[in-house]
Amino acid sequence: MDLLQGDERLDYLLAENLRIIQSPSVFSFSLDAVLLAKFAGIPLSSKGKIVDLCAGNGVIPLFLSARSKAHITAIELQPRLADMARRSVTYNELDSQITIVEGDVNDAPATLGVEKYDAVTCNPPYFLAHELTEKHSNEHHAIARHELYLTLEQAIFSASRLLKQGGKASFVHRPERMLDIVTYMRKHRLEPKRMQLIYPKYGKEANTILIEGIKDGKAGLKVLPPLFVYNDNNEYTDEVKVLLYGDK
Amino acid sequence: MDLLQGDERLDYLLAENLRIIQSPSVFSFSLDAVLLAKFAGIPLSSKGKIVDLCAGNGVIPLFLSARSKAHITAIELQPRLADMARRSVTYNELDSQITIVEGDVNDAPATLGVEKYDAVTCNPPYFLAHELTEKHSNEHHAIARHELYLTLEQAIFSASRLLKQGGKASFVHRPERMLDIVTYMRKHRLEPKRMQLIYPKYGKEANTILIEGIKDGKAGLKVLPPLFVYNDNNEYTDEVKVLLYGDK
Repeated sequence: MDLLQGDERLDYLLAENLRIIQSPSVFSFSLDAVLLAKFAGIPLSSKGKIVDLCAGNGVIPLFLSARSKAHITAIELQPRLADMARRSVTYNELDSQITIVEGDVNDAPATLGVEKYDAVTCNPPYFLAHELTEKHSNEHHAIARHELYLTLEQAIFSASRLLKQGGKASFVHRPERMLDIVTYMRKHRLEPKRMQLIYPKYGKEANTILIEGIKDGKAGLKVLPPLFVYNDNNEYTDEVKVLLYGDK
Repeated sequence: MDLLQGDERLDYLLAENLRIIQSPSVFSFSLDAVLLAKFAGIPLSSKGKIVDLCAGNGVIPLFLSARSKAHITAIELQPRLADMARRSVTYNELDSQITIVEGDVNDAPATLGVEKYDAVTCNPPYFLAHELTEKHSNEHHAIARHELYLTLEQAIFSASRLLKQGGKASFVHRPERMLDIVTYMRKHRLEPKRMQLIYPKYGKEANTILIEGIKDGKAGLKVLPPLFVYNDNNEYTDEVKVLLYGDK
């Protein structure tokens, strides 16, 4: 089988030899996924077990593999995206560390096991189903971006079921949904412990929130230093360059 | 009656002629109160009606009077602090705009009227009663800082009762309590709409949260640009200098 299909490209991830298969017409990863992969509290040893929900083309598991030796199971609903993710994993020779599973996040606890994981990451669809407009009528994009097959509460519920007590679930979303996220997290035993707001640039409103909860954790939230994406010249800030390209 | 009693001082507020009576042994206002007075959504015309809960020595009503012609009623439980606030109001010739009421925030809706106000501000006690330690055993400080006579939920409930539908309630607190604040706000019909995180300096965790809710408002939160208190030389940033000293 060919490595690339149709308009797919093999893009760089980090400075350190990782590559990822992307396609402008099907799926390209966002900065938000990279921010989540950096933010998430995860086990580092090979005994650890991580699940990534809504994996898309696998960008989060690939980034996590650069931080940790833990095994990573990644769930993606769309066969085409799961296939792209699987080919990227194989290309990077990470088949022993990353398993891509094509499936529904709602079924993940039943399929993968309840209370067996140390950490769950999830970059869920951001938009409500009724926010779907013509311009996102491409089916791959629509499913990845809108709550057509998975609501925010369902994603949070699945994450909680997968986690051991004391395990960590990390999400990235829009700040407008912050109240819903924290309400659902508390409802499903994930106590919010760390939050980071991402601002497009200094002096602008936040447009992304990162949040981590601990299953059955004690109350008490920390708000990490803010992160700015662009500087005044509309270039990535140094912090973001390091995230995307590594320490060079 | 003398203007000042005991170790009280007459301190400057802003560049614009305001003065405030303070006492290191009884009560001095914090930067948090100033931040709240700047952040809060308030009516500007003389027809507007504002309540400030937990008014302390009256710093928030004094600052608000520089932004708005609305009438401001300020509630303070401690007789000594209410008296300081009243003397400051008189000194600044603001008796026609600011009324200081000595009383319990829990009684405020019954005393002042239910659903009659456009805006409520509140800088409540930050610490739980059980966090009270010897070093804060000064009674004035203890009551102002700890939930001895007023819990966070009680403050939020009173604010909601005072407000008209569509009225705005603004609070300042520690980020550790963010989840409690938003949970109680939603429980008592105050939908969180604007939030700002205050960071002591760039690269540090947030230590203060400002949040505003609208009574019976629609869901949807904005996170305003972050505010840094100190620069790398440990001086106030320009933004904070303007807040404290006015536009000079």
